[in-house]
Amino acid sequence: MRHDGRQPDELRPIRIQRQFTKVAPGSVLISAGDTTLLVTASIDETLPPWKAADPAAQKGWLTAEYCMLPGSTSPRKRREREKVDGRSTEIQRLIGRSLRACVDFEALGPRTIMIDVEVLQADGGTRTLGITGGYIALCDAIATLGDKVSKDRPVLTASIAAVSVGISNGTPILDLDYIEDSQAEVDLNVVMTGAGEFIEIQGTAEGRSFTREQLDQQLSLAEKGIRQLMELQRAALKG
Amino acid sequence: MRHDGRQPDELRPIRIQRQFTKVAPGSVLISAGDTTLLVTASIDETLPPWKAADPAAQKGWLTAEYCMLPGSTSPRKRREREKVDGRSTEIQRLIGRSLRACVDFEALGPRTIMIDVEVLQADGGTRTLGITGGYIALCDAIATLGDKVSKDRPVLTASIAAVSVGISNGTPILDLDYIEDSQAEVDLNVVMTGAGEFIEIQGTAEGRSFTREQLDQQLSLAEKGIRQLMELQRAALKG
Amino acid sequence: MRHDGRQPDELRPIRIQRQFTKVAPGSVLISAGDTTLLVTASIDETLPPWKAADPAAQKGWLTAEYCMLPGSTSPRKRREREKVDGRSTEIQRLIGRSLRACVDFEALGPRTIMIDVEVLQADGGTRTLGITGGYIALCDAIATLGDKVSKDRPVLTASIAAVSVGISNGTPILDLDYIEDSQAEVDLNVVMTGAGEFIEIQGTAEGRSFTREQLDQQLSLAEKGIRQLMELQRAALKG
Amino acid sequence: MRHDGRQPDELRPIRIQRQFTKVAPGSVLISAGDTTLLVTASIDETLPPWKAADPAAQKGWLTAEYCMLPGSTSPRKRREREKVDGRSTEIQRLIGRSLRACVDFEALGPRTIMIDVEVLQADGGTRTLGITGGYIALCDAIATLGDKVSKDRPVLTASIAAVSVGISNGTPILDLDYIEDSQAEVDLNVVMTGAGEFIEIQGTAEGRSFTREQLDQQLSLAEKGIRQLMELQRAALKG
Amino acid sequence: MRHDGRQPDELRPIRIQRQFTKVAPGSVLISAGDTTLLVTASIDETLPPWKAADPAAQKGWLTAEYCMLPGSTSPRKRREREKVDGRSTEIQRLIGRSLRACVDFEALGPRTIMIDVEVLQADGGTRTLGITGGYIALCDAIATLGDKVSKDRPVLTASIAAVSVGISNGTPILDLDYIEDSQAEVDLNVVMTGAGEFIEIQGTAEGRSFTREQLDQQLSLAEKGIRQLMELQRAALKG
Amino acid sequence: MRHDGRQPDELRPIRIQRQFTKVAPGSVLISAGDTTLLVTASIDETLPPWKAADPAAQKGWLTAEYCMLPGSTSPRKRREREKVDGRSTEIQRLIGRSLRACVDFEALGPRTIMIDVEVLQADGGTRTLGITGGYIALCDAIATLGDKVSKDRPVLTASIAAVSVGISNGTPILDLDYIEDSQAEVDLNVVMTGAGEFIEIQGTAEGRSFTREQLDQQLSLAEKGIRQLMELQRAALKG
Repeated sequence: MRHDGRQPDELRPIRIQRQFTKVAPGSVLISAGDTTLLVTASIDETLPPWKAADPAAQKGWLTAEYCMLPGSTSPRKRREREKVDGRSTEIQRLIGRSLRACVDFEALGPRTIMIDVEVLQADGGTRTLGITGGYIALCDAIATLGDKVSKDRPVLTASIAAVSVGISNGTPILDLDYIEDSQAEVDLNVVMTGAGEFIEIQGTAEGRSFTREQLDQQLSLAEKGIRQLMELQRAALKG
Repeated sequence: MRHDGRQPDELRPIRIQRQFTKVAPGSVLISAGDTTLLVTASIDETLPPWKAADPAAQKGWLTAEYCMLPGSTSPRKRREREKVDGRSTEIQRLIGRSLRACVDFEALGPRTIMIDVEVLQADGGTRTLGITGGYIALCDAIATLGDKVSKDRPVLTASIAAVSVGISNGTPILDLDYIEDSQAEVDLNVVMTGAGEFIEIQGTAEGRSFTREQLDQQLSLAEKGIRQLMELQRAALKG
Repeated sequence: MRHDGRQPDELRPIRIQRQFTKVAPGSVLISAGDTTLLVTASIDETLPPWKAADPAAQKGWLTAEYCMLPGSTSPRKRREREKVDGRSTEIQRLIGRSLRACVDFEALGPRTIMIDVEVLQADGGTRTLGITGGYIALCDAIATLGDKVSKDRPVLTASIAAVSVGISNGTPILDLDYIEDSQAEVDLNVVMTGAGEFIEIQGTAEGRSFTREQLDQQLSLAEKGIRQLMELQRAALKG
Repeated sequence: MRHDGRQPDELRPIRIQRQFTKVAPGSVLISAGDTTLLVTASIDETLPPWKAADPAAQKGWLTAEYCMLPGSTSPRKRREREKVDGRSTEIQRLIGRSLRACVDFEALGPRTIMIDVEVLQADGGTRTLGITGGYIALCDAIATLGDKVSKDRPVLTASIAAVSVGISNGTPILDLDYIEDSQAEVDLNVVMTGAGEFIEIQGTAEGRSFTREQLDQQLSLAEKGIRQLMELQRAALKG
Repeated sequence: MRHDGRQPDELRPIRIQRQFTKVAPGSVLISAGDTTLLVTASIDETLPPWKAADPAAQKGWLTAEYCMLPGSTSPRKRREREKVDGRSTEIQRLIGRSLRACVDFEALGPRTIMIDVEVLQADGGTRTLGITGGYIALCDAIATLGDKVSKDRPVLTASIAAVSVGISNGTPILDLDYIEDSQAEVDLNVVMTGAGEFIEIQGTAEGRSFTREQLDQQLSLAEKGIRQLMELQRAALKG
Repeated sequence: MRHDGRQPDELRPIRIQRQFTKVAPGSVLISAGDTTLLVTASIDETLPPWKAADPAAQKGWLTAEYCMLPGSTSPRKRREREKVDGRSTEIQRLIGRSLRACVDFEALGPRTIMIDVEVLQADGGTRTLGITGGYIALCDAIATLGDKVSKDRPVLTASIAAVSVGISNGTPILDLDYIEDSQAEVDLNVVMTGAGEFIEIQGTAEGRSFTREQLDQQLSLAEKGIRQLMELQRAALKG
């Protein structure tokens, strides 16, 4: 039994609210337990300069930024105003790569989608929840493109969700909160498609190396969690 | 009649939700029409270095940061990650000065209160709404101090609220939204106490200078709006 | 009686020297008591990129920078070489806004005027003296444009001057020096036109809020001081 | 057959030269094909401030920096002198985490080991080669500590090496060079211990998601490559 | 004959005004033709951290900053607010090194002298004039130390002045203005003591290398100019 | 006799290895005693923006960067990642100016040569060795231009080498290592052409001023050293 009463293979309660604000074409308030994110998707009808100079410039682009707001943790986190810290850089690169994997950039056309993941409250699992919520914001933003994109060629080629798994006291557990994450022996973030294939796997030993068998157990747990998250995504997108 | 149907002396609908997140001791989601802010108040049990070196170091401090999130506007606003732009600097200095005016720093003791105003959606009046919401977050944060501060000497010495007024087509109007603000001839931000005295007045001619009579009309309008905002603050703090 | 023997409504001695240097088209050495500024006005025959992209790009622009030189205070002020501090940002935005209020940018045409306020010695009132001196430098710079601008449509539409007022021991006083400023209960900076209208009002309570009556007294004092400053500006511009 | 004639499971030729310079306690010139790195390990007899403030401050620390020199690529890479780019941040965090996994920081004592990975020539696989070479530099640096550390408790608790694997035209391949890397469908970096356990797994789909079976094939290939690299490390450390 | 009518071995007219401002202990307005500088010397009763940590921390320190104000040139020079440009860095290092050469830092005691060279108008020769004027500001600042330093051991061990020389159309010339400097074939800056010895020599070929004989001719010219500058320094320090 | 057994006029052992890496068109590993540099020369077929805007834009450009790698000294040198320190700026400006003196930029055509001097191990004399090695890398890079430049007009108009000289205990010495440099009374860096003329002279008194006679002795020593270095350059370029 885990410290909050969950089973090893149990997600935290997930809440999803689309169109939390209305100025951004995609705007999702998503929470998993006490982790709360506002994920917006904006569309810029231009390309970044390095991309525009490219011969393949008819293709679009997607990029992401991740930011923990100062009030999202206790003690308060210093605002990243002069330089971005290494952890944020690493996370936003992961989010951007993962969401790019489900976009057909030729179908999107020469425009840029910006995903902004703002952490309003941090209690573990922000990077994977940012991907899961980012997918919903991305769907909503693309829907606003209307006739700017062809109806015959969908911009989104897959659904995407992500979850963290880990090993705690030798037991594989799903969707770690901050306390579990800080004590886990392994920390593994998994991003998958609706077809059950991998987009990204990032596993890190925390103080103790892990065996191939332990890796397999965690991947199975992640698959199970991601299937549930995808059902919640589908329900939210219908609602 | 204004473009959204309001009377010249009418505030936008105000919504206030305390404890929107729970990790920060004060956490207020406040909106006026489509302007939506998350204001958190955090407490740091130390003083900033320049303050700690001061002989009066038994006194506390309060400081504020203001940030428009990228998804709060369309087109998306570039994130201030390498340097803070001049407008943000000016606004957060105003918010900090205004809220400091209601704190007895000897009663607070040698600790720092950090107010973070995050603009989730921007539609005019963010700086004054940040002060109005910041006062509520400040009350909640101070309440968490409990026995760390004396019961005989209140930390808060006044209530504080703020509103913008302006002149549009020659008519003084209250609580401008973005469209009104961008067309107004004068932009005046007023911060007042519950006792009806001024904390800060910042008036700027936009393309046309203004007379002392026009100033007087606007100040009267601001006083009226601030009295209403203070009732809403009181109701929220009771609720 | 004030610490330097002045009456409450008395300005410090003002000295104005035009063309202090000759490479900048406007170059004014101006002092009020021990506050000494070099204000230059330069003309750039291009527009800033954000302005040039504007459909209204035939209009010109004016911007200002404010800098306290390290040797202008004791102890020496650290040079702002890596980032501009919040106070400088706030002041240079005020100076720029105020001087833009007297320029007809269509008459100026697609060029940029840069006002540089260098504080050679700081003893209070630098921001308002920067505006008062900046107006003179601006006049001199515009005069060098000659036939580049139309004679039928003056570039300058008003004269501008500014002064600080405050309340010290309950008494409203004019043109505070550093000692007075650091002890004042209210600090109010006022920018006006030659027609007696307001361009900018920035009033801040310092530790104690102020009443509408006190505001009125200070505004009257400011009007009186600004009338005197405008006479000195006119005399200097003739000389 | 691969473009350079290698078998799918064949490493590039590895060259290792210890003590390439003599001022740093560890200094390894290591190359895999045309990828050439200088990895130095320096020892600082203090701890970083955030670590020193920690109650566990008797424990040491290890951190890493990664830098591609401008002349290491064609076209020349702009030197990271004003900010570190996201890719470098991500890589140096991986190198640091991986090498920390083999150090007993209590045995090391309150000192910091700095690993500097300088890419003299880049042809793919720099991050994994940096870990493989970094382990050797780390061994050499720790050997210089002599009596400063206890003989009864080894500072190094495992050996560490790393390699990249990928899928190219559907075939899993080992140790990708730049051309292969830029065309691969999957990019997987694996860090392992001498005991055959995982320290870090980072797998990224490049344009196409991958199955669990493909993951398994790649992990087997990586294990094989890492075993060979560890033999080369051992030979170098004896030499 | 030179473009301004000077002989090859003739200095520009030099004007020196001590105590131009009064808050800094040394404050010198110095000009050579149209080059005009404000040089201040401030005293900080502490040492920089890297110096204070030194076992020889009873010794003082002197450092210099050099800044061309934006209005000092036409077109206006961009203000160095985010980073210092290479030329300024090079010049302020030269000024600091040169003035340190005449200070007995044991006699000065554990305090720091800051020399700030502000270029109000630039017409060539700013770095050497900064040294010549800086020496006067330094004398004035040290005189304010009074009993804080011993009367038996002078803080200043030499007098220092500097001048530029060059070769123009094959002829060695003294004290180049901007036009001459931009056309000269050699640019040589020389710093000397009152005893006629060298502190610093920096000679640069501009497009054409120079012979040892040409170097000798220029050094003789520099010596002559520096002797005259030292007489002017002495006269100013008496006056 | 010097601490390492050399005669006063004796260079340290010089080793030169061309094409140390192969991706950069010029790549030279050069060492003088324990000072070891990797100097690369890259060619960019564009001009820097400030140069391209120039009417003389058919002319090419050469610029240099100098960087001491962190592991090149003990204690480890902090990596210059946020700003370049003053010493590096000064040195890379010297290297760039010196090497520009031997290039006919019209013959080079509108392209930029970048010289990167990476200090792998620092033991004094890095700036002059960077010039000596940079000349070789420059020759190699220009040779790769082939038919892009005219055969009738050589791009290189002179050969260039540099050395440091100094005065130690009153004796002029050649090619100082770090220990000698830190104790020398004078530090003089000399850059010369194959024709025996000067490109740059930078002499600095370290604690004691120097006479014209001492300058002459040092210049003679430098000439002798540079003649030997040029023979080594010629041999390397033939080999």
